[in-house]
Amino acid sequence: MHILIIGAAGMVGRKLAQRLTSDGTLGNQPIEAMTLVDVVTPDAPEGFNGKVTLETVDLSAPGEATRLIAGRPDAIFHLAAIVSGEAELDFDKGYRINLDGTRYLFDAIRIANGEDGYKPRVVFTSSIAVFGAPLPYPIPDEFHTTPLTSYGTQKAICELLLSDYSRRGFFDGIGIRLPTICIRPGKPNKAASGFFSNILREPLVGQEAILPVSEDVRHWHASPRSAVGFLIHGATIDVEKVGPRRNLSMPGLSATVGEQIEALRRVAGEKAVALIRREPDEMIMRMCAGWAPGFEAKRATELGFTAEKSFDEIIKVHIEDELGGKL
Amino acid sequence: MHILIIGAAGMVGRKLAQRLTSDGTLGNQPIEAMTLVDVVTPDAPEGFNGKVTLETVDLSAPGEATRLIAGRPDAIFHLAAIVSGEAELDFDKGYRINLDGTRYLFDAIRIANGEDGYKPRVVFTSSIAVFGAPLPYPIPDEFHTTPLTSYGTQKAICELLLSDYSRRGFFDGIGIRLPTICIRPGKPNKAASGFFSNILREPLVGQEAILPVSEDVRHWHASPRSAVGFLIHGATIDVEKVGPRRNLSMPGLSATVGEQIEALRRVAGEKAVALIRREPDEMIMRMCAGWAPGFEAKRATELGFTAEKSFDEIIKVHIEDELGGKL
Repeated sequence: MHILIIGAAGMVGRKLAQRLTSDGTLGNQPIEAMTLVDVVTPDAPEGFNGKVTLETVDLSAPGEATRLIAGRPDAIFHLAAIVSGEAELDFDKGYRINLDGTRYLFDAIRIANGEDGYKPRVVFTSSIAVFGAPLPYPIPDEFHTTPLTSYGTQKAICELLLSDYSRRGFFDGIGIRLPTICIRPGKPNKAASGFFSNILREPLVGQEAILPVSEDVRHWHASPRSAVGFLIHGATIDVEKVGPRRNLSMPGLSATVGEQIEALRRVAGEKAVALIRREPDEMIMRMCAGWAPGFEAKRATELGFTAEKSFDEIIKVHIEDELGGKL
Repeated sequence: MHILIIGAAGMVGRKLAQRLTSDGTLGNQPIEAMTLVDVVTPDAPEGFNGKVTLETVDLSAPGEATRLIAGRPDAIFHLAAIVSGEAELDFDKGYRINLDGTRYLFDAIRIANGEDGYKPRVVFTSSIAVFGAPLPYPIPDEFHTTPLTSYGTQKAICELLLSDYSRRGFFDGIGIRLPTICIRPGKPNKAASGFFSNILREPLVGQEAILPVSEDVRHWHASPRSAVGFLIHGATIDVEKVGPRRNLSMPGLSATVGEQIEALRRVAGEKAVALIRREPDEMIMRMCAGWAPGFEAKRATELGFTAEKSFDEIIKVHIEDELGGKL
């Protein structure tokens, strides 16, 4: 089978390509080819024996979506997006990439479907940013999507398109509402939510990290490994069982910052915890108040999606996947 | 003040223009000008003393939205849409008019806002078709929008755009999710939901009407007069009180077909009821099963939107507004 990953240079995209390489199959079908595209040229996954095509693509440029599906990939992972902060700062760019780009992709598939019956699986990464405060805890599966960012709006719109195009039979779409990914590998970045990862990742390697909020802040987390697992499961799940409501809030772990710190203490000791420096930031605290505290995720759980059950587990996944298995 | 009605040739658009004419004001501001546009040239409302401009416009044609707002109307009622059945049959046309047309309008306002601070009130007619079965009864305000038609999808997408553009400060938008309009004036038409009106309207004037479903079918209704009232209230309401969730399920009357018939009996007697002929239609019965049985509509009610409280009232409104006040 032939797999297309759009947004393959990002953190989740790279991990997905590597996982598909090590699996060698998707849904018991051998993977013969992978096309990896992004706005910057993605790296080829190490050890893949099939055909790899690496491309630089702007999905919002005319004709690009049609060209991408010319080889009729069997499964398409659409992970590409302008992130929340940038979509808020640059209105036009956010709508052009996150909405129009996705619609070009969906329409290219629709037209191909009309030409030759092409009907791929399309796995789309949505986000819990489709929800906007005030939010209950836990958020039920049937809660309305009232985003408070342009990014969340663009994701919610693409979810609606995904369901309608699936209902029409143009493709088999699954929308995956990812929790906040924790522990995000790499360097601390300027994302307002970055501290959820920073306060674990940095102390685990003896570095100081800044905590800008109070310990009672509750949020919704899953590891990068779980995120990749969601995408793989979304690509192989029986869509008949999913029915017409194609967008699913993924399972995850609802935890307070205090619970994160306790897990760090259990896994890495007091010395690691001592590296967390409290520097309250009023703006980040205000933003946090609007973020999703946690979800019921009943449907996704019943459909077989799984995530970590404790922050100890999330930290151990990071140690295994990013630190070679040891502290 | 200057009012623009897009979709002014439709039933609700005509009644809205007439109501604005008889009011002479909107939110205590005298109405000096009305621009009435549609895909067919609308009629001028009778008795309007201000300036009336009548135009034939395809909102999805390039440049038309910009031209429409060149005169900087203070309030815009956007009622134009390809109806549900047609949007389902003609995928491209539905998305072009209902989604792209609306987005052109919103973007034209956004650009004008950037140029000179123009910030009109925009009242958008959405629909209970943004909801898809299975549906609880009553449907709470926070229930998710999972439409099962392309029309419902297009309306749900425009709702999201309306909220985001309002949040960004480009205009003050209010989305009005209309109940099914009953009693719809005019001739019986081929809409699957037409019977809700037919079984009252036709017997009231001594004509036979066909009932294709059983009497226990429950649905959500408001009169044309209430629909116009919602739009007027949406145009004058304090948006600060509405907050960021700009799309509101309107109040209405949840009633079974049996309750409709009992009201007809009370208002027009046994002779009228005897004109309803039962002709069960399997397809219409299946479609009905997915329609909204009723809403809580708490927020809209708290915000001052009002509708009829009984079907007797709905029938009396029809007699007053369409039959000159007498049977």
